[in-house]
Amino acid sequence: MPRHAHRIAQIEPFHVMRILEEARRLESTGREVIHLEVGEPDFPTPPLIIEAGMRALAEGRTFYTGAAGLPELREAISGFYQSRFGLNIDPARIIVTPGASGALQLILALLVGRDNEVLLTDPGYPCNRHLVSLFEGKPVNIPVGADSRFQLTPDHIDQYWSSQTVAALVASPANPTGTVLELAEIADLAAACRQRGGALIVDEIYQGLVYDRPHETALAVADDLFIVNSFSKFFQMTGWRLGWLVAPPEHVAALEKLAQNLFLAAPTPAQYAALAAFHPQTLALLEERRQTLDQRRQYLAKQLTELGFILPACAQGAFYLWADASAFTDNAADLAHRLLHEQGVAVTPGLDFGVDTRCHPFLRFAYTKDISTIKKSGELIATMLANNRIATIFES
Amino acid sequence: MPRHAHRIAQIEPFHVMRILEEARRLESTGREVIHLEVGEPDFPTPPLIIEAGMRALAEGRTFYTGAAGLPELREAISGFYQSRFGLNIDPARIIVTPGASGALQLILALLVGRDNEVLLTDPGYPCNRHLVSLFEGKPVNIPVGADSRFQLTPDHIDQYWSSQTVAALVASPANPTGTVLELAEIADLAAACRQRGGALIVDEIYQGLVYDRPHETALAVADDLFIVNSFSKFFQMTGWRLGWLVAPPEHVAALEKLAQNLFLAAPTPAQYAALAAFHPQTLALLEERRQTLDQRRQYLAKQLTELGFILPACAQGAFYLWADASAFTDNAADLAHRLLHEQGVAVTPGLDFGVDTRCHPFLRFAYTKDISTIKKSGELIATMLANNRIATIFES
Repeated sequence: MPRHAHRIAQIEPFHVMRILEEARRLESTGREVIHLEVGEPDFPTPPLIIEAGMRALAEGRTFYTGAAGLPELREAISGFYQSRFGLNIDPARIIVTPGASGALQLILALLVGRDNEVLLTDPGYPCNRHLVSLFEGKPVNIPVGADSRFQLTPDHIDQYWSSQTVAALVASPANPTGTVLELAEIADLAAACRQRGGALIVDEIYQGLVYDRPHETALAVADDLFIVNSFSKFFQMTGWRLGWLVAPPEHVAALEKLAQNLFLAAPTPAQYAALAAFHPQTLALLEERRQTLDQRRQYLAKQLTELGFILPACAQGAFYLWADASAFTDNAADLAHRLLHEQGVAVTPGLDFGVDTRCHPFLRFAYTKDISTIKKSGELIATMLANNRIATIFES
Repeated sequence: MPRHAHRIAQIEPFHVMRILEEARRLESTGREVIHLEVGEPDFPTPPLIIEAGMRALAEGRTFYTGAAGLPELREAISGFYQSRFGLNIDPARIIVTPGASGALQLILALLVGRDNEVLLTDPGYPCNRHLVSLFEGKPVNIPVGADSRFQLTPDHIDQYWSSQTVAALVASPANPTGTVLELAEIADLAAACRQRGGALIVDEIYQGLVYDRPHETALAVADDLFIVNSFSKFFQMTGWRLGWLVAPPEHVAALEKLAQNLFLAAPTPAQYAALAAFHPQTLALLEERRQTLDQRRQYLAKQLTELGFILPACAQGAFYLWADASAFTDNAADLAHRLLHEQGVAVTPGLDFGVDTRCHPFLRFAYTKDISTIKKSGELIATMLANNRIATIFES
């Protein structure tokens, strides 16, 4: 049997997906499961986008586009930066990709040579560190805490940057913590990377899903960033697999060359469909849905606090709450397992997002279901915690 | 400015795409261009597949699927192996991917560690060697000639296999040569790799596009292969970005883990659409189109031979002819450039497909246009070759 490359043993399965599969297996046996584990809201893709997709198919738009994407779509994205943020971003700097995964792959393939290091937050989105390993680079998982809202600071850059470091990657809003970087903080991080001859990569996949604060982009404060974005989350096009990147002009040709080799082009029907993503009617619907998410966020935060979870940082974005379960357990993975099997509530254990053991008492709750479902999950969690207390009393 | 990883300088742009872009620029100035350069036939996606895609969108099938793909689609692919080839392939061994690019990426990420070698044909599909470099492996480009129909033989395996070699990759039908491996040859290659503890990867993206010979799969003669396949070519779904791989059972879990990290999942609407790819009505239409391609192949082969090109190997598959232009030039890239600019005929220079200088006098012609267009291209080529001869006479 052929051996696997060394990297394979280091790459953890993406547990969120495993838990989802386990939940589906339970459901296939007739069990009801409340899904608060997966990063995908229950909203269908907005109707104008669906209609544009259907029209594209009816018109036979099923051939390859250029590797950088449909020119009209690159212009529409540029137009969105203009109308939403007042920024003039040349469409030539925008490359349309198969999901944000495709965008991040291109950027890391460009920058990360063997043994090169990329600074990451721990906790953070687990694929990031695995993709760095894939290109034989070394992810540097920096333990971050509530004191920096689980984000990198210039002090971290100072402390962890080595002669092998080529980039730092931050996410705003972040997964799993939902925290947001202030523009001034991004400017400082960009300066710290720039000063060291490295790049700052900003993951803005949850851009637009922010609450109690303005809709922003890192491009407002620095132009030499690599931006990862997506139609999945804010525009609710998860399954279409469509994202984009914005790069400094001098890197575009190399990124395009990589795109040709890595995936040829993003899916064509999805690209035509996404042209309707910036329509005023779609944007109005997305604003309604953002408000709905905000209501769910507030409800879930209150519920979790009442149950005894600690929410250590102000989650102003994405659709996640990062909840400390140390009042009940040291091993939140075990708690997540029992919640799924005993009560039918699926959540993601913190260890999925971090190498740092400080993540272990955490759970990530996604508020991707309506308030009545969230309420129901609260009752089920309360039941389990009560059983737990009784069991603990009997054991002691 | 951040530096690029070393690999970037080694990765050539995929010239076919560049030529396509150049042709499109010419067209935007009002010039007419005949496209014989790109690997995409002029057939639209079959109507039942389009309809299934539209239905999926209307029904809101826009959420993520599992990383290995829609269970129904994996079963349908397994069913196709059964009905077409009489083979029993467990759906659990089939992973649905974003295009064949995604499938090849997964397999190479799995097998290729740093400095590991992969044996490839030269000429061959250029992305293959670039993807090997991307994972910090070393592509071994083996010069192959008409004597082995531009395919690898067990002698090549014997000669080029080193302690660092982990796999050999063959394509049948092959790009750019259109040649096909006999099943007995594949069995021998598989045995040669197996004996050395390595893997044989068989690219079957052009499977089904074969002429004067049966429709076959390498899985008929060996079960421990890694198979790359696609809905792009035979099923004419290029822009949808959908492919699949078949792997030995013991590698599936690791491949699925990689899929979760590399791209989450293949596009959902495309997966639902592809369910209609195996419908008898679709298969009947595809058979008609295969016959049309065969007529074009015969016409183009005759035309090129009459023009003075040499077709060194029997091209029984895909939709390419690999034509030796050494009767006219040592530098076919220059010839391709002049053909595009002077006559508006776009073809791909041989150097795109090979490191070996023996590829330089070659051109790849794709018979992806109808016979009247192919005929027209012949007249334009004849005009240029005549001008060429006159110029040569004046120069001498």
